[in-house]
Amino acid sequence: MGNSIGNIFKLTTFGESHGKAIGGIIDGCPAGIKLDFDFIQKQLDRRKPGQSKITTQRKESDKVEFISGIFDGKTTGTPIGFIIKNEDKKSEDYSHIKDVFRPSHADFTYQKKYGIRDYRGGGRSSARETANWVVAGSIAQLILNKINVKVSAYVSSVGKIQMNKCYKDMDLSLIDTNIVRCPDADFAEKMISEIGKVKKLGDTIGGEITCIATGVPVGWGEPVFDKLHADIGKSMLSINAVHGFKYGFGGVEISSSKGSEVNDIIIEEDGTTKTNYSGGIQGGISNGNDIYCEVAFKPVATIMQKQNSIDKEGNRIEIQGKGRHDACVVPRAVPIVESMMMLTLVDAYLINKIKKI
Amino acid sequence: MGNSIGNIFKLTTFGESHGKAIGGIIDGCPAGIKLDFDFIQKQLDRRKPGQSKITTQRKESDKVEFISGIFDGKTTGTPIGFIIKNEDKKSEDYSHIKDVFRPSHADFTYQKKYGIRDYRGGGRSSARETANWVVAGSIAQLILNKINVKVSAYVSSVGKIQMNKCYKDMDLSLIDTNIVRCPDADFAEKMISEIGKVKKLGDTIGGEITCIATGVPVGWGEPVFDKLHADIGKSMLSINAVHGFKYGFGGVEISSSKGSEVNDIIIEEDGTTKTNYSGGIQGGISNGNDIYCEVAFKPVATIMQKQNSIDKEGNRIEIQGKGRHDACVVPRAVPIVESMMMLTLVDAYLINKIKKI
Amino acid sequence: MGNSIGNIFKLTTFGESHGKAIGGIIDGCPAGIKLDFDFIQKQLDRRKPGQSKITTQRKESDKVEFISGIFDGKTTGTPIGFIIKNEDKKSEDYSHIKDVFRPSHADFTYQKKYGIRDYRGGGRSSARETANWVVAGSIAQLILNKINVKVSAYVSSVGKIQMNKCYKDMDLSLIDTNIVRCPDADFAEKMISEIGKVKKLGDTIGGEITCIATGVPVGWGEPVFDKLHADIGKSMLSINAVHGFKYGFGGVEISSSKGSEVNDIIIEEDGTTKTNYSGGIQGGISNGNDIYCEVAFKPVATIMQKQNSIDKEGNRIEIQGKGRHDACVVPRAVPIVESMMMLTLVDAYLINKIKKI
Amino acid sequence: MGNSIGNIFKLTTFGESHGKAIGGIIDGCPAGIKLDFDFIQKQLDRRKPGQSKITTQRKESDKVEFISGIFDGKTTGTPIGFIIKNEDKKSEDYSHIKDVFRPSHADFTYQKKYGIRDYRGGGRSSARETANWVVAGSIAQLILNKINVKVSAYVSSVGKIQMNKCYKDMDLSLIDTNIVRCPDADFAEKMISEIGKVKKLGDTIGGEITCIATGVPVGWGEPVFDKLHADIGKSMLSINAVHGFKYGFGGVEISSSKGSEVNDIIIEEDGTTKTNYSGGIQGGISNGNDIYCEVAFKPVATIMQKQNSIDKEGNRIEIQGKGRHDACVVPRAVPIVESMMMLTLVDAYLINKIKKI
Repeated sequence: MGNSIGNIFKLTTFGESHGKAIGGIIDGCPAGIKLDFDFIQKQLDRRKPGQSKITTQRKESDKVEFISGIFDGKTTGTPIGFIIKNEDKKSEDYSHIKDVFRPSHADFTYQKKYGIRDYRGGGRSSARETANWVVAGSIAQLILNKINVKVSAYVSSVGKIQMNKCYKDMDLSLIDTNIVRCPDADFAEKMISEIGKVKKLGDTIGGEITCIATGVPVGWGEPVFDKLHADIGKSMLSINAVHGFKYGFGGVEISSSKGSEVNDIIIEEDGTTKTNYSGGIQGGISNGNDIYCEVAFKPVATIMQKQNSIDKEGNRIEIQGKGRHDACVVPRAVPIVESMMMLTLVDAYLINKIKKI
Repeated sequence: MGNSIGNIFKLTTFGESHGKAIGGIIDGCPAGIKLDFDFIQKQLDRRKPGQSKITTQRKESDKVEFISGIFDGKTTGTPIGFIIKNEDKKSEDYSHIKDVFRPSHADFTYQKKYGIRDYRGGGRSSARETANWVVAGSIAQLILNKINVKVSAYVSSVGKIQMNKCYKDMDLSLIDTNIVRCPDADFAEKMISEIGKVKKLGDTIGGEITCIATGVPVGWGEPVFDKLHADIGKSMLSINAVHGFKYGFGGVEISSSKGSEVNDIIIEEDGTTKTNYSGGIQGGISNGNDIYCEVAFKPVATIMQKQNSIDKEGNRIEIQGKGRHDACVVPRAVPIVESMMMLTLVDAYLINKIKKI
Repeated sequence: MGNSIGNIFKLTTFGESHGKAIGGIIDGCPAGIKLDFDFIQKQLDRRKPGQSKITTQRKESDKVEFISGIFDGKTTGTPIGFIIKNEDKKSEDYSHIKDVFRPSHADFTYQKKYGIRDYRGGGRSSARETANWVVAGSIAQLILNKINVKVSAYVSSVGKIQMNKCYKDMDLSLIDTNIVRCPDADFAEKMISEIGKVKKLGDTIGGEITCIATGVPVGWGEPVFDKLHADIGKSMLSINAVHGFKYGFGGVEISSSKGSEVNDIIIEEDGTTKTNYSGGIQGGISNGNDIYCEVAFKPVATIMQKQNSIDKEGNRIEIQGKGRHDACVVPRAVPIVESMMMLTLVDAYLINKIKKI
Repeated sequence: MGNSIGNIFKLTTFGESHGKAIGGIIDGCPAGIKLDFDFIQKQLDRRKPGQSKITTQRKESDKVEFISGIFDGKTTGTPIGFIIKNEDKKSEDYSHIKDVFRPSHADFTYQKKYGIRDYRGGGRSSARETANWVVAGSIAQLILNKINVKVSAYVSSVGKIQMNKCYKDMDLSLIDTNIVRCPDADFAEKMISEIGKVKKLGDTIGGEITCIATGVPVGWGEPVFDKLHADIGKSMLSINAVHGFKYGFGGVEISSSKGSEVNDIIIEEDGTTKTNYSGGIQGGISNGNDIYCEVAFKPVATIMQKQNSIDKEGNRIEIQGKGRHDACVVPRAVPIVESMMMLTLVDAYLINKIKKI
């Protein structure tokens, strides 16, 4: 348990950040999907370290190697096995944490849960794992393309730099025109500047990502315990450093509003509503409107300042971050958020095929 | 899919709000647990309608009837089947919605997904279903009692009446001393008054519930895809009207903070941290500190005001709520939030038993 | 775990033989299926005790009561909850086994596994549970009817009375014309006589059931770990007293044959083979030919003769069966075998819908 | 679905026989297990092609490469990813089957189910996949070693050469002293001779394997739908070419016996029975006695004789086996049968840990 996601389109992963490779198996991908390898790699490149001055300078080519499940460029319906080699493994960067527990990291919990851990680079708890998710999410998107479901995400806040704008008032095609991945150029500049300042201090900062899916037809999602938004929420909360999830149209705090203010009036037979405070989901089932959610990230735990902690023997020690880390994780997390949305949606799509016969 | 929760301690439910009964099966409950039927019923009573002037006046005794899996007052390890009869079924209250789709309700999505629906009282999409969860959650708590894990929840906001206090600064034993279930008497009064006002307007209002689990040992939760907070999040997002979830210590917005501000310094060998911004979970695994989360509810969709919508044929119509509904759902949702936390924790507890041998 | 079967069309059950009721939840039944309640009850009647002189004389009406998931006589896509009350509970018949372990029964294993058991009538280990399976299997058959998949089973041996005939050489419409459910009248007579003799001795006897499914299209079943025949096998081995399973055309022992003797030559474009030694399945996937399997039952463990055993304290004791039991279980097991086949097939059918898009 | 086995100790696999590699992920392996890599490789060597004159002469070194989940030679509780490279890929051997469907092979069913298939060497349907199972089964055995559970299997029949001996009357340490893996030297010789004869004819032959597990404590296996023998049965029926499964003491046909003949009398407080016709399992739960089962294999479908079939367009064609194939699969299948038993047992062991708390 703990290393698989999805019911029908199911991804199971493995790998530590400083082992030979990470990788995964996608089981349940329908047969006959033509794979666009350039698209998959492009998504991986948006996530990979070293892509800009505001990300970690660690270098990984993050080339995915497919091993099975593909024939003549198409999926065969059998499991898709893949690996991504770990290249830039400076394990010595981590020798200083072999016997200590870094604050707000998973060192302590892994050690206590399993009695043993691969401490190099966080091992299994490293966000390097999310490269696997991007591979699977990209394949999910290729399936969703066939029915015109599109997923986009962008950075909507960095620290106290917070846009209070609706996604409809922005041009989402501009997301990748700047290195912070915010479609509003002014806010992007402020965010980049903020990350720079924080980095200079040897500190890190949190942020938020907004994600939108368009074209989702009515009927996806299972009621009661596998509600579409609950599955999206779980997917997002699986991402390293995510600590909050909200769905429903932004700009308004729904939980402090009245029903008369935020009820969505259906105005068209296809389910189109006048407003979309519900974020495209009613009773756990997509209602045909845009799906909309916000994902909150805490600051990266590794900071380049001295902090207190304890070691394995319980002795109090002082620790300072080494290695190459992001001062703010959200720019690189955009394709991860998109991938988790894609994975959740493709699974809901496939499950929904068998609700009526 | 969609009607089960849990991997080891697994609840599967059935039932429509206006059918004969709702009920469920708990599979995977360990053998030999002495059942405290009074406690279970007490939790059901905290959820049931008609309990106070600020809840719906619908009357249901919500008596649970156990059918199997119990012998001499103890669980036998075989599945626990139970039902709760539906008594106060005024189905005629719902004839006006037979062919129409209520705004922000699941009528439209169920109809389109399945091509058929039991429209009476929302059918399967009714929050009546949550009584099943309270039964299972209460049994989960009885197991957790054995290792001194305790779960509490309280109302922390109603509309714009929002406490900005840490749970540590309040006396949680006072939660049930008022009908809104807020441990701060002053805030409780304001919340009750706010709900009364909204009700008079035929309107509804959203709110928030805070939930705390104490005594959880280090090691619960699976890394990567079944992180403890991701599972708690999914459980909470399964509750009707929940649209947001956050874990980690309140009072501070973690996603707009710096690492140096919200990193939790480990100060004791048992994992105790100086602060608890992480909400008791690191890398998806409990770290021995209090688990803390906040759950946001949108306002109840049924309002006693006229709203526009469409009917099954796509004709625009006007609709007005009938029947007996809550103006604010959070007071009754407190035991539901607790139950979802209990269910998630007991499952994590049992799974964790097999991580080391 | 242990009380659910199926991945998409999923049955979860509960109940002890001498509790208030047994029952179950069917999750994943597609919406819009018109239920033929007479057919369901007719299948239950074929399984129920007291139906003829060669079965136990215990009387149970075995009336199924549906609680949810059905509206206007059709399935709604929400879980179908149902119960079957236990009427003829002579619990005193079992007081003599409260503290003893009957030979070849599950008394000892349940006691040791769980530390507690409902000893009355075998509790959860009683074959009464299979009535639940017949309810779900019958609903599965109603779905399969829509695509002309038909399932039949018959008794092919009782003790040493063994037919060595192919199902194609018999008229399967005659199965229910005799109380032993064998389509060959001569063999039926011999089997009935054999059961009578054994019963007079206070003994019991084993037997075999053959099951055939016709009309299954090419493509059902998952390769590798959820092969169609492996799932059918597991379903059959779940039936009380079953200890053997074989698929593939009878009359020939395939495991002692040569490839040149039992390879099935494809002769038509639709996959029709000249012979059908493979029993309609290749590589775990249905190939369009009749599916064929044989299920072997050991004799009922409760005999009316004195046997040695031990009690809870380990003392050696002597025990003799009381109560009302079958001398041979296969006549009543015919609808159970059919139901397990139907359940497995409908699940394979639904899963296969998502292999290509 | 279809590429995973196990609930807690879960193996998910990928790979086609003529792709780059096959491999898998073991999720749920407890932490702290010291891996004996020699033992794992030894089991793989017992399965690999080219090991003796009676097996296929295809050469594969079958070296397993572990990628994750292991640190300092011990399991870490995180997923164990592994691959086995495909070396001796003579894909041209298979060009003649690109557009034709071999009799009693999975060519036709894969093509129809998925609309596309990797035809080289059977692709995913090749028994090469079972090397993955041996890796996982061997790790399972290393866990079982800690509690002295041992699994052995041997060839008990080849074609009409059938031993009718109980495993207790043989010395199981002799299994690997001959190339057919039969502990009785006389029978072994006859079997080897029989396989030789069949091979000369360009034909193939079926056989049977007997498997025994000793040391299994009371209580493993879930009642009702995940009975221990049903799970073992499903595991065995997943092996390529297996078409029959029986559990319970051999030499006697249980389904044609009387209760008084095959009931197992408990004679010791620890559950030891006088006889063991039940094969160590009662009511789906292990009873402390030896677990015993028999697995029947049909002859390999690829024969070196001319056979009729059809091609993709439905034209009747003639086909003759090429490549290097086994004339009898059972000698190499011995470690596969053992592995499936080990996988099933370790899963039952881990699940059983949470039945009582």
